[in-house]
This record gives sequence, structure tokens and C-alpha cells, in this order.
Amino acid sequence: MKITIPQLNKHAMQQAREQQDMLLKPKGALGQLETLSIQLAGMTGRCDWLPQHRAVLVFAGDHGVMAHNLSSVPQAITAYMVNQFMAGQAAINVLARQANARVTVIDAGVNADLSLTNTESLRFVSGKVAYGTNDFTVGQAISAEKAQKALQLGADVVKAEIQSGLDILVLGEMGIGNTTSASAIIAAITGNSVETVTGRGTGVDNATYQRKIKLITEALELHTPVNVDTLAKIGGYEIGAMAGAMLYAASQRIPIVLDGLICTAAALIANQINPSARDYMLAGHCGAEPGHRIALNYLTLEPILHLNLRLGEGTGAVLALPIIEVAMRTLNEMGTLDVG
Amino acid sequence: MKITIPQLNKHAMQQAREQQDMLLKPKGALGQLETLSIQLAGMTGRCDWLPQHRAVLVFAGDHGVMAHNLSSVPQAITAYMVNQFMAGQAAINVLARQANARVTVIDAGVNADLSLTNTESLRFVSGKVAYGTNDFTVGQAISAEKAQKALQLGADVVKAEIQSGLDILVLGEMGIGNTTSASAIIAAITGNSVETVTGRGTGVDNATYQRKIKLITEALELHTPVNVDTLAKIGGYEIGAMAGAMLYAASQRIPIVLDGLICTAAALIANQINPSARDYMLAGHCGAEPGHRIALNYLTLEPILHLNLRLGEGTGAVLALPIIEVAMRTLNEMGTLDVG
Repeated sequence: MKITIPQLNKHAMQQAREQQDMLLKPKGALGQLETLSIQLAGMTGRCDWLPQHRAVLVFAGDHGVMAHNLSSVPQAITAYMVNQFMAGQAAINVLARQANARVTVIDAGVNADLSLTNTESLRFVSGKVAYGTNDFTVGQAISAEKAQKALQLGADVVKAEIQSGLDILVLGEMGIGNTTSASAIIAAITGNSVETVTGRGTGVDNATYQRKIKLITEALELHTPVNVDTLAKIGGYEIGAMAGAMLYAASQRIPIVLDGLICTAAALIANQINPSARDYMLAGHCGAEPGHRIALNYLTLEPILHLNLRLGEGTGAVLALPIIEVAMRTLNEMGTLDVG
Repeated sequence: MKITIPQLNKHAMQQAREQQDMLLKPKGALGQLETLSIQLAGMTGRCDWLPQHRAVLVFAGDHGVMAHNLSSVPQAITAYMVNQFMAGQAAINVLARQANARVTVIDAGVNADLSLTNTESLRFVSGKVAYGTNDFTVGQAISAEKAQKALQLGADVVKAEIQSGLDILVLGEMGIGNTTSASAIIAAITGNSVETVTGRGTGVDNATYQRKIKLITEALELHTPVNVDTLAKIGGYEIGAMAGAMLYAASQRIPIVLDGLICTAAALIANQINPSARDYMLAGHCGAEPGHRIALNYLTLEPILHLNLRLGEGTGAVLALPIIEVAMRTLNEMGTLDVG
């Protein structure tokens, strides 16, 4: 996927910085809200930008590595949850309603035939690249060609969303077993040890946790060098599609709000393809998985929320939207300090 | 002020806990949102409670200790900012509008005659107990009688707000010099050293910062034992009124969202008067002032946000409202896990 990402608008950033220092408050007193407003001005090129049209894209995909039973729930839960998203029953539906964000669900590689219909409020994209990835402990997870297809799927979905009106992009995912792929990606790209980055995902027991670490370690050896073609070697379809979505959004100056561990692993993939993508990313939250903080540090992104979440779906990202909105509203709606 | 605070509703907490474990997610995956929903059920006695009617009370007061020029701005800024609140120009106005919360401004002890008129959207309470406190480095800040008046003022304001409809109470303040009083209170009640709890407030220089520490240290010696009658000895009118507001809200089972350093110092005062008040408190955020974290730890309150704010006014508390709402909405609006 060939994509050009524009530089941040330095002029707008300088203007936002100067405007912040004139507001009715001590300099710097709004902390991270001030930093956010300056970053957003740089991304969008506008100090008066507001995140009015909001879309949450939830990409779903299955993982061949689940042959090793690395989750506390079976693979079928991926398809089950896609149905729940479409029925408006999942956490992300509740959160998106409150945040006034629309939700689009994308089948990037679910290992089941889904029969779903579009509704007015919830869009479904049938973009299945394959019925789940291959087991990356024995071979490449995805062919080079299909990795490109996954990236392109994400880009195409964002392109369509822009046509419906889009100011800010929230990314989330669903895929049983995908913390294993995400942990492998984070270890591969950041260079941290597998033990350091790997957590318990949905909450596996000690024995499964140790097997998870062992399998990832062996897979990283098998695929050396894993910091090249990482998506194909150890990635997932939903991860590739999220990376493609990020790259395309960045090319269109649309701020991207990252969610949890898996979404942030996708951000590492996007950053590997084009390091300028990172300039358009905001970290919605830092969750309970240890690799999440490590990946955010690697990208030098400061999380907005710290709520100890470990759900994915885009939940931690959509929760950050009111903070992002308030950062811009304070910049634009506060009075200025003007004392005699 | 005589007040009875009911115990948390253990039955509702147990019900919320069981309900959380049935929702469409791994147990515990919503992290702090789950904890919040259980606490709120305990406070209100209802699992289906929602923070619909929201009021931000901003209490203003001046401080005699400002004779020592411990702020980067003059005392007159307190009255100036009260005018700005009433004009809807301050940060708290912008944040409260976005959070759909009404704002009431209360003169608890501003050292100026304020001439303000009520508006439909913004209520002003003229509750001035005195024209600022006395300089606590040379004597008691407030007489015992006026300390009671400040507490009663806060309680009366909350009583009136309840008559207008009130589900959740956000507290904030304005008072140039009040980080000095708050730091003194936090050192006195938590037993931590003045150096550890004291920060730079509006952003004072090194020399002023050292003087601030020295003056607080001397004042704490002067008023020994400072963990008795702390409000009168080293407090402030806005601090006493916030403490009174907390005690009354707790007596009525209304959840209280704490803001920054000064508000949390007031929480220590409320806790000193009746330790059960703490059960009805949520920490909106943990800000940049070192004493803030120390006071929250003393109260064993886990902050919702960490945005490095240091503005007061209720800003960090009102920002937590969407998170509090979402905690209850997930509890009530998510589907339950029901697999084959």
C-alpha cells in the first residue's frame, strides 16, 4: 500500500500554543489538555477543529495460534461477539452511544461464515481476507499478498467512512487469541523480551500463561528477523486492517485514537510501514496488559486514560473522546486573561 | 454541625458485583469502571442509578497568608475570577457545559465586595463569612464560630441544590493563596512533611517556594496540635464550606466528586469531622501538586483521571463525569454472556 502522510502543521501548533498561554488560567494549568489541543491543531491544521463526526471501527479476525488453546474462551467467541456488536449489546456499543460515535464492524478474517445485515445505525463490512490466520508457531501467519489485502481493507473502510463525514477515528478489535499475536509483534518491534511484554489476555491461568510465553519465544526465533515483514510473519487480519486504517487516516490528516494492546501493536505495524503515521495517533488509554505501556513508550505516546481496562473493542479509545473534545473546547471557548 | 451519614448499601454493592460478572466481557475487563459502578451502587443504594442532575459548586475565599505574597498573582484575582465564572468565561464553565452540569458560584469569604446578579443558568450564593481569613502564620486563620458558619454554608448550599434536583455533586474552588492552606492541612492531617506535600501552586519561583515551605512549617509549630480543629487553625472559608457540602451530601447519599489539591484538603477536614463522609467520595483526578496524591492515598481514594491538571475550579472533577456515567451505563445497558 503506497501512502503519503503530510507533516504536522507547525504553524497551527504554534498558534494553539500561543492561544493556550493567553487563556484565563496559569500557564500549563490544564496539563495534558493543553498538549492535546496543540497536537490536534498540528494534525488537523486548525485551532478551531472539533471532533464532531466520530466513528469507531471494530475489526474482527481469528488466529491460527489458537490451535494451542491460549485463551480462556474458545475461538467461536470471535464470531459470537461480532453478532453481539451488531445487536448493540457489547461494551463498545454502550460506550459509543454515550460518546455519540457511530460504530462500524468489519470482518477482516473471522473463522466462520457470518450472516449479518446492515442496519441504519450500525454498518457491517464483509471484508474477510481469509478464515483466520495460519498458526505462526509453525509457519508464516499470513501470505505477503494477504497481508497487503488486510492493509488495503482498512484503508478502504476509512475512505468510505470519510465519505459519511469523519473528524476523528477510533479503532478497536475483536479476535480470540489476538493478545498472543500482539505480544509477539510488540516484542519483535520494540526489542523487549517476551516475558516483559506478555500478559494474561482474557485472564488465563499460570500454566497457559507460561505456554503462551514459550510459544511466542519459539515463533520469534522461527521467523528471525521478525522486525521485517512482521505483519505477515506473526500478525493478524484485524491487526493489518487496523494498521491500514491508521495509514490512510494519517494521509487524510484525521486524528486516530488508539485503544488497547492489540490496537497499539497495529500502530507499531503502521509505524513500521510509515513512521509519520505516529504523528496522527493519540493513545486513548493505557490498560492492564504490560506490553501496552511498552508499545506506547516505543511510539512516545502519552495515554489519556489509565482505567486498568483490558477489553479491547475500542472501549478505552472511545472513552477518551470527551477529553479530546474538551481539550479543543477550552482552547476555543475560554476567555483570555486581561487584568488591568 | 451535627450530621448522620448512612452506611454504604452492601446489598446493592453485592448485586452490582454479581451483575458485572454476568456481562458480555471477561470478568474484571472493564477495570476501574467496574469498581466505580459497585461503589456508586453502594452510595446510592441503586444499581440503576445514573448521574443525570449534575451540579458543580465553586466556592471562593481569600487567605490572610497572602500577606506574604506566596502566589504568582495578586489576591484581587479571586474576585476577578468569580466575575469570570459568572460571565461563563472560565475553564470550569466550558467543561461544565460539555458535561451538561449546572454551575453555582458561592462567595464563602472573598476579600472584596462582589456585585453580581443571578442568571438563569448560573446561580450565585452570597455566603460571605468574612473578608478573607487571618494570616495563619501569626494566629488562628478562622474563629471557631466562623469555622462552623463556613461548614454550615456548604451544607445549606447543597440542601438548596437538592431541591433543584441533584444526583451527583462536583466541588471546586477559587482562592488565591489557597494551595498554602491546603498543603498545611494535608501535612497536618496525614503527618507527612511540609516539603513532601507542598508544590508550586500557580507556578511560583524557587525563592517563593522555599518561603512557602518555611512559613507552613512555622505555622504548623505555632498551632500544635494541628490535627485538632485544623479548619479553624490553618483552613479557609471555601475549604470549610466544601467540607460542609461533603458532609451534607454524604448524609443524603449523594456521590461527591473531588477535584484537586484544595478540594482534597477539604475532604480531609470532612473526614476529620466524620470519617464516614469518605465513603461517598470519588476522586475525579490526581493532579500535578504532590500533596494531592498524598491526600488521596490517606483517604484510600483511587483517582479516575491523571491529566496533570493544576487549575482547581472543579475542572478535574467535572471531567470525570462521563467516566462515572459510563460505569453505570455499562452495568445496566450491556448484554449478558450466554454462550451455548
